Amino acid sequence: MNIPSILPFTHTLIEQVAGPGDLVVDATMGNGHDTLFLARLVGSTGKVLAYDVQQEALENTRKRLKEAHCLSQVQLLHKGHETVEEELNCHDQPLSAAMFNLGYLPGSDKTVVTKPETTLTALHTLARYLKPGGLITLVIYSGHAEGKLERDILLAELGQWDQKQYHVLKYQFINQQNNPPFLVAIEKR
Amino acid sequence: MNIPSILPFTHTLIEQVAGPGDLVVDATMGNGHDTLFLARLVGSTGKVLAYDVQQEALENTRKRLKEAHCLSQVQLLHKGHETVEEELNCHDQPLSAAMFNLGYLPGSDKTVVTKPETTLTALHTLARYLKPGGLITLVIYSGHAEGKLERDILLAELGQWDQKQYHVLKYQFINQQNNPPFLVAIEKR
Repeated sequence: MNIPSILPFTHTLIEQVAGPGDLVVDATMGNGHDTLFLARLVGSTGKVLAYDVQQEALENTRKRLKEAHCLSQVQLLHKGHETVEEELNCHDQPLSAAMFNLGYLPGSDKTVVTKPETTLTALHTLARYLKPGGLITLVIYSGHAEGKLERDILLAELGQWDQKQYHVLKYQFINQQNNPPFLVAIEKR
Repeated sequence: MNIPSILPFTHTLIEQVAGPGDLVVDATMGNGHDTLFLARLVGSTGKVLAYDVQQEALENTRKRLKEAHCLSQVQLLHKGHETVEEELNCHDQPLSAAMFNLGYLPGSDKTVVTKPETTLTALHTLARYLKPGGLITLVIYSGHAEGKLERDILLAELGQWDQKQYHVLKYQFINQQNNPPFLVAIEKR
């Protein structure tokens, strides 16, 4: 495939802005794939703040990071991403990147889903701490009913963000069945 | 800017699939910027078929190509891109890429615009001749009234293209004022 699919394109963007020693956030730890990706990018001198409300996500992610010898640079936080300011507040460096994978934890309880109010609270805080040129990526799943609502609320809100302060890109395959995920990427100018 | 803007991202995609000796199409010659970009990619052993209904576009493009010593690999065609099969038919190699910039010729008569019917006819023909992995890009301008209609007709149609045969990506900044252009990229599977 010559057109990058959603996840590789997301990673390519993040790789441009996050490097050794940087501060980054995984807002939705899930099974820890992005947490590990970020941990490798920032290296042992960097810091990943990783959030999830489900204990299972923390356990899966801790195991994955330990096996890859990347646990030391990650703070695993068993709480919602809407509280991210509590940690950002304690660091004296700006944020390089933050990643969201919205929806539910794959392979787990599908009734525990991200919610537009808390997603938006986290987004506003992260945007405030983001360095110029820094990125926030949201991979949006809308196959479940709450996902459609979250998608619509987020797109309506992000479409209003001031273009002098942020670039907001939507990257979406438009001829796929069954509500496949799409990417929204936000860059601070 | 870390998120690629529309034109650089379009060029990055095309550079992946078009190289020396290839057959490619500039469906909307305009002032010849993409024609020159394609001519450089395919080199003196390749062939660019370039279309425009306006004599002014051909003159501007010919001048640009001559100055860059790239005229020999380009066939400048003073006719609509809906007739592209007449030329594709005469080549025994498949098509690597085709580019469209919809709307009107910048700096010229704004009443001469691309039309959805002829754009769709050209698209269907090009898709048929495209090699697997080959790309068609459309940069869609919808600031003018006919542009909005063309945009809506194209998106409705391309959203229905069979996902087993084509990837159809929409790449759009969603928080910009005044109907900025966006990209649709089609890859044959």
